[in-house]
Amino acid sequence: MIGFTGNTLDRADDLRHDPAAFAAAAGDWRARWLRLDGLMPEIGGDGRLVWTTLADLPDDAVPILLGLAEGRPHFAAFLPGFQASSAPAMRSPALMAMLANLAPGEAAIYAAARSLIDWHARHGFCANCGAATDIYRAGWARKCPSCAAEHFPRVDPVVIMIAEHDGRALLGRGKNWPAGRYSALAGFLQPGESVEEAVAREIEEESGVRVRDVRYIASQPWPFPSSLMIACVATADDDAITLDTNELEDAMWVPRAMVRAVLAGEEGPFLPPPPYAIAYTLLTEWAKE
Amino acid sequence: MIGFTGNTLDRADDLRHDPAAFAAAAGDWRARWLRLDGLMPEIGGDGRLVWTTLADLPDDAVPILLGLAEGRPHFAAFLPGFQASSAPAMRSPALMAMLANLAPGEAAIYAAARSLIDWHARHGFCANCGAATDIYRAGWARKCPSCAAEHFPRVDPVVIMIAEHDGRALLGRGKNWPAGRYSALAGFLQPGESVEEAVAREIEEESGVRVRDVRYIASQPWPFPSSLMIACVATADDDAITLDTNELEDAMWVPRAMVRAVLAGEEGPFLPPPPYAIAYTLLTEWAKE
Repeated sequence: MIGFTGNTLDRADDLRHDPAAFAAAAGDWRARWLRLDGLMPEIGGDGRLVWTTLADLPDDAVPILLGLAEGRPHFAAFLPGFQASSAPAMRSPALMAMLANLAPGEAAIYAAARSLIDWHARHGFCANCGAATDIYRAGWARKCPSCAAEHFPRVDPVVIMIAEHDGRALLGRGKNWPAGRYSALAGFLQPGESVEEAVAREIEEESGVRVRDVRYIASQPWPFPSSLMIACVATADDDAITLDTNELEDAMWVPRAMVRAVLAGEEGPFLPPPPYAIAYTLLTEWAKE
Repeated sequence: MIGFTGNTLDRADDLRHDPAAFAAAAGDWRARWLRLDGLMPEIGGDGRLVWTTLADLPDDAVPILLGLAEGRPHFAAFLPGFQASSAPAMRSPALMAMLANLAPGEAAIYAAARSLIDWHARHGFCANCGAATDIYRAGWARKCPSCAAEHFPRVDPVVIMIAEHDGRALLGRGKNWPAGRYSALAGFLQPGESVEEAVAREIEEESGVRVRDVRYIASQPWPFPSSLMIACVATADDDAITLDTNELEDAMWVPRAMVRAVLAGEEGPFLPPPPYAIAYTLLTEWAKE
């Protein structure tokens, strides 16, 4: 399963538009509330997320409806005053270890909860007029009491891709990455461009390599804080690299057999991405071709 | 060419991070400034956008760098005080006619400019603390002078898709659509889901049809105000429709030969989408299969 996918909850969008039904769900004694320590998950010995009841939460906790499982409401709690900046950085070793141990589908629930809580924490004011806004739509939006503007959680599309040339994949390493780690190139998609255009622009900016024939491979949510990763492969006609040293520390072409070997756990010229990152899925799919 | 793609400007991201070079570009007498009437384009008899010089703009116009063409800077101007709500609605017949007549690649430049100007107009305040923010990074971001938060233009991913069953495509029509118009279903991707999951969720919510095997087809920017349209086809095992009448007025299964005929201009049970919409590309690709 691709990392952070496989959420088994029914998102029950209709409840978001029905304040009475939502209030009833939030008061339901069977409702489960996700236990989080700031933005960090709590994980049981079974590799599953830990849930609690409303009784265990502060009185001012605001319910965010994650969805239903067999009719039973599942919530995350937004605690007013929570500061996203006080939460541990996304790549803390503790979180990395937790993610690697989560049962399938559990990381997807965590991803939705984390992205929403983090968004509320950093979007308490109206971008249109500056007034303090209120949570509404079951935690999936905010509304301005002053100018009536509605605000919805961001999802920021990111392209992540390998150029291929003569059976080799272009991998790069960012500054301050762990020793030996190389991965697919990546960057935010910008207003006014398609996925295919963003892939070509980012590869050329970072490595000087020009590509054509962009092929979509897969996607995943990436809750740091709220990206949609879109993984692609593109064909390069030339393998000359001109590194943008503001973006990358190094880049290299790696033959398919070597990528396959590294993914199989053998020693090679780079360390593979973690399995929950879509770069892992992307390299795995490309290595199969 | 897919609608709103094919922007030939070099986005010159490096200039966004180099205030001195950016200021020099904005003062360059050769620089071209996009003429807009609010958010509406001006289009010459050659089907191309109309450009002007800095001298024709108000003194308080703020430059947004669209990119370079043969080294010559191209800008859009953000006029402080511009109200996005005063601009004509996205589906005005005048704009539809203009888009249909634009030369290839021109709509892509317009899309980037429109999305950025509209975003600035509706995001003048810091979502984190409520203070008024300043444009920076050559018009590709805003920064808060109070809490130092940086804000970047939104790009909202939208999935647009057809379910297929036994050689037929599921098409729906929204409320208040022009008479006879049917198109692919569509909806915003939400935090914590992949493209594939969003496609399955939206189809099931709107039509009751369950799908598997989601296949990516193409993408396009859609500047109303700032979507990234991601077009897919998915396979349905059952063709029973349960309409969500809050979302759709009707839905129907259309055989491939009929889709092909309608796209070829023949009369049929529905009017085709306009060629600059990715629904047109999606139906065309599916009809070829």
